[in-house]
Amino acid sequence: MREMQFAINEVYNFQDHYKTLTHQNADQADSDMVDMVLENMGQFSEEVLGPMNETGDVEGCKWLAEDKVTTPTGFKDAYDTYREGGWQGLSFPEEWGGQGLPQSLSIFISEMAATANWTWTMFPGLSKGAVNTLISHGSPELKEKYLPRLVSAEWTGTMCLTEPQCGSDLGQVTTKAIPQPDGSYKITGTKIFISCGDHDFTDNILHCVLARLPDAPEGTKGISLFAVPKYTVHDDGSLGDFNNTKIGRIEDKMGCHGSPTCEINFEDAIGHLIGEPNRGLNHMFTFINTSRLGTAIQGLAGAENAYQNSLWYAKERLAMRSLEKGMRSMEQVADPIIVHPGVRMMLLTQKCITEGGRAMIYECAKLADQYEDAVRAGNDAEAHSIDEKMAFVTPILKGFLSEVGVEAANLGVQIYGGHGYIKSNKQEQYLRDVRISAVWEGTTQIQALDLLGRKIMLQKLKPIDEKCSEFRSFALQHITSSNSQIRAHAISLLSHAVEWQYITYRLAMNAKSSKNSLGVASVDYLMYSGYVTLAYNWLKMEVAAQSALDSGNMTQEKDFYESKMQTGAFMFDNILPRTRSLKATMFTPTESVMGMPPKNFSFDHAL
Amino acid sequence: MREMQFAINEVYNFQDHYKTLTHQNADQADSDMVDMVLENMGQFSEEVLGPMNETGDVEGCKWLAEDKVTTPTGFKDAYDTYREGGWQGLSFPEEWGGQGLPQSLSIFISEMAATANWTWTMFPGLSKGAVNTLISHGSPELKEKYLPRLVSAEWTGTMCLTEPQCGSDLGQVTTKAIPQPDGSYKITGTKIFISCGDHDFTDNILHCVLARLPDAPEGTKGISLFAVPKYTVHDDGSLGDFNNTKIGRIEDKMGCHGSPTCEINFEDAIGHLIGEPNRGLNHMFTFINTSRLGTAIQGLAGAENAYQNSLWYAKERLAMRSLEKGMRSMEQVADPIIVHPGVRMMLLTQKCITEGGRAMIYECAKLADQYEDAVRAGNDAEAHSIDEKMAFVTPILKGFLSEVGVEAANLGVQIYGGHGYIKSNKQEQYLRDVRISAVWEGTTQIQALDLLGRKIMLQKLKPIDEKCSEFRSFALQHITSSNSQIRAHAISLLSHAVEWQYITYRLAMNAKSSKNSLGVASVDYLMYSGYVTLAYNWLKMEVAAQSALDSGNMTQEKDFYESKMQTGAFMFDNILPRTRSLKATMFTPTESVMGMPPKNFSFDHAL
Repeated sequence: MREMQFAINEVYNFQDHYKTLTHQNADQADSDMVDMVLENMGQFSEEVLGPMNETGDVEGCKWLAEDKVTTPTGFKDAYDTYREGGWQGLSFPEEWGGQGLPQSLSIFISEMAATANWTWTMFPGLSKGAVNTLISHGSPELKEKYLPRLVSAEWTGTMCLTEPQCGSDLGQVTTKAIPQPDGSYKITGTKIFISCGDHDFTDNILHCVLARLPDAPEGTKGISLFAVPKYTVHDDGSLGDFNNTKIGRIEDKMGCHGSPTCEINFEDAIGHLIGEPNRGLNHMFTFINTSRLGTAIQGLAGAENAYQNSLWYAKERLAMRSLEKGMRSMEQVADPIIVHPGVRMMLLTQKCITEGGRAMIYECAKLADQYEDAVRAGNDAEAHSIDEKMAFVTPILKGFLSEVGVEAANLGVQIYGGHGYIKSNKQEQYLRDVRISAVWEGTTQIQALDLLGRKIMLQKLKPIDEKCSEFRSFALQHITSSNSQIRAHAISLLSHAVEWQYITYRLAMNAKSSKNSLGVASVDYLMYSGYVTLAYNWLKMEVAAQSALDSGNMTQEKDFYESKMQTGAFMFDNILPRTRSLKATMFTPTESVMGMPPKNFSFDHAL
Repeated sequence: MREMQFAINEVYNFQDHYKTLTHQNADQADSDMVDMVLENMGQFSEEVLGPMNETGDVEGCKWLAEDKVTTPTGFKDAYDTYREGGWQGLSFPEEWGGQGLPQSLSIFISEMAATANWTWTMFPGLSKGAVNTLISHGSPELKEKYLPRLVSAEWTGTMCLTEPQCGSDLGQVTTKAIPQPDGSYKITGTKIFISCGDHDFTDNILHCVLARLPDAPEGTKGISLFAVPKYTVHDDGSLGDFNNTKIGRIEDKMGCHGSPTCEINFEDAIGHLIGEPNRGLNHMFTFINTSRLGTAIQGLAGAENAYQNSLWYAKERLAMRSLEKGMRSMEQVADPIIVHPGVRMMLLTQKCITEGGRAMIYECAKLADQYEDAVRAGNDAEAHSIDEKMAFVTPILKGFLSEVGVEAANLGVQIYGGHGYIKSNKQEQYLRDVRISAVWEGTTQIQALDLLGRKIMLQKLKPIDEKCSEFRSFALQHITSSNSQIRAHAISLLSHAVEWQYITYRLAMNAKSSKNSLGVASVDYLMYSGYVTLAYNWLKMEVAAQSALDSGNMTQEKDFYESKMQTGAFMFDNILPRTRSLKATMFTPTESVMGMPPKNFSFDHAL
């Protein structure tokens, strides 16, 4: 909580930010209100969601029938409490029953819930994506029928993209949509990996389904988006028949057992077109971007859980003696393992990731508010400009934070030693649960291509020019700081910002002669971008902390700010230098990657 | 199989090596015999062990009573076949019923079994450790009573070190051993994490248990080693009573479900001293070194499984089009994902790890043979010298290969995308199973301290001087190669060998002023050492492959050797440069790691 407040109030000054927003109810988001929201969700997360995290893993969900999947003990009750508290509508428009508060508030509370219990949080999280999709692209009738009951959390929504033969490559989608005389469509096809595709939380579920019209062009340009409810809804709002959205099975997965991953067989299910024909993939991007930010939060949540849990253990577990006499606890048989450099480095790595990752997400949360503000004010140019900024950071947030989230959870297992492998100590669950974050909503490799290809090269390098310029300006402001650590880190950030831009231009040049060179560079480039962005956010935190320390009028908070400075030191000394290898391997000759014909990969197996 | 033959015959020339060995039966290990052994174990692994790998995970082991733990379906039958085949005795002395063949052969077959089914392989694997311990330190009576039945695999053995309060820090062991008038001891205490601590394979199990005598000094210098059978054994060899080696529970773990991890409560269990009083930890090192090499093989096995399984998928799964027209399969809706650079890079990383890791282990296997040879020839100086070489490489093999084994398995999940998260696709099991390899038998952090502290600094840098000199000589031999790739890689290896030595000296200097600086550097140093060793082994493979290519008289094998050259190119271009970041972070200022007091790690949680 203190960490969130630091990022909200001192690093990103959301109080001042809320005052500048002109949109509906933004002015209500003053600091008292923000504190109240955080405290209430904090309490709900700690007392209700957290204790069910292990239960969710052990019990899992159960398939009982084609229209009946149950969730772990307590999940439904928690959802009832959440719905009754009006949490789902926090940042949705009042028009649809929401409270019209800024998006950022919704992001803060979803981080809390996600950390306490990721799988439970997926249910309302995916539903938010369905709401955003309908708000952006739904017809007035669809909005009228579904939005109030999705915003109130009376119903939930899902996202049905993947099919057995295709996930990343949605051009291969074969699910069919046949137009009916009444203007509706009959949807037939099999979707897999549908998170929260069925459950016992609500009376109805609205599936957002990608499918093809009969005359649709091949590939991605022939995909349309449909709203397909589990039960049809009469015009008076009452529920009709089961709509043949048949759950074939739920998957037996590595982790995330608390959330059912469904195969849905749509058999002449009645659907309604969302938006324009053949523009389904574009419309779905509203949903996908929400989910990608959500997945970045999953990475952060995994790191935070691993850190909290392994820090506790590192302070309790006794083994060997510190090499420094001053750190020894001679009244005990051995010292807590937190005195050992190897253990500290793992903890500090987790700390750099969680606190820096949080700041990265909050920076994006601020953009989300500004975007909504511009849209509501009808300022299209401003909205477009902010949208581009968000589009640029999204693959970095998703790709980088999921990868380092997995790393942090993996370190948590390591800190626990053999005990980390035992289920009851929870660390291994954090690792199993967070592992999928680097895969779903587009793998790290897909994010990397999105960043370097679509977001940078296709934009003729404008976003990288802007971002590096922003980092350089910030670094230059602090390069003459009176604090030597901040000076040194400002210089380091400055040189990285220059190098990042240089690397991008060099890659752009190489791409002219070798089409695959961008693909070869992309994942290293994504991770490089992530580390530089993490370092920028750490420098912001150090500046905020040092400013608080310099003000001098604090007593009990001194440790908090000093801890920030110490973690910042580790960040720049031990984490940021990872860019040295990434910079080298980014320029691996294309031939070393592409040269081997597929048949030469193995001679031992009949492949 | 082809890969193993390449490493055995062409890279490390085991045929010539066997001819130089003077010890018992080594001369029988000619190439026909080696081929036969490999083929038979290959068949057993493929047909019997492999198919049970998933069953083992799903079924797991079951605790039925304090003296009764059952294993997954088929495990016992497979063990019977293995025992009847005389496999356990392959490399043990004829004196105890073995076949007296070189150790390396036993390592080759254990790699095959480990890859097919790691958890099954643990049973005979741990038992080999018990045999080695008894051979080295057991009294004539103990040897007579137990060795023949352990070597024949009629019984198995375990290793009981860890207790609830201590694992890495064995100085905290509290299990007691009370001397009895008949010369035996009564052992009382709780051991945890005892792999294969009970099972249904055999009539009896011999536990090697660390415990304290009543007058023992505190810490590691007061620990003795005892042989404690599950059932006492009469002098005529018949079994007596249950010896109160009570299995309290088996652990519910992240992976390795096929092997039971037992809590054993010894309650006045009758034990016999192995070796000298208070020298138990030293005696146990025989066991620990065997296990550490075994754990390195676990890392390799995890990587190999992940590679085989994900390569198959990368060739089958269709998504998107290659950027290069020449690589497109236009008769299919999309191209197999192996055409994409991001997927190739993951596969090539796995390939570098598996094939290079195998060569690293075989190099050590050769040392193991030479050591045994020297011991049997009574050449103590030679034995000591080889033992030091093995002691130096053991933490590198164990620490590095387990970490990169986990990485390779993790990449396997990533190549499968969402399907990698689904249990039936096996990838997630490989990751869960191999994850423990970086923890047990001493964590990566412990290996790193062992390498830099005990194996280098305490030896006054002699081992690193020798190893770097060996690498330099090899590189210098090839620096004028007629092949430009080999020339370039020889130069790269040469500069790394020089840098490795330089880094070590710099760390030694730093250690004089800061005790914790070695701890701060150690894990990065371990990984650096691993990458340089991997590169050395890749250059050896490239030299062997190029030599075969140069000989010119091959047709179908050309692809095999070209594949080696291509993988070698990726190794030096994309994997070895990881040393750039490791070199930087190794010198993280000690203060950045040690500066933060434990209370400042978090302000949010009551820790």
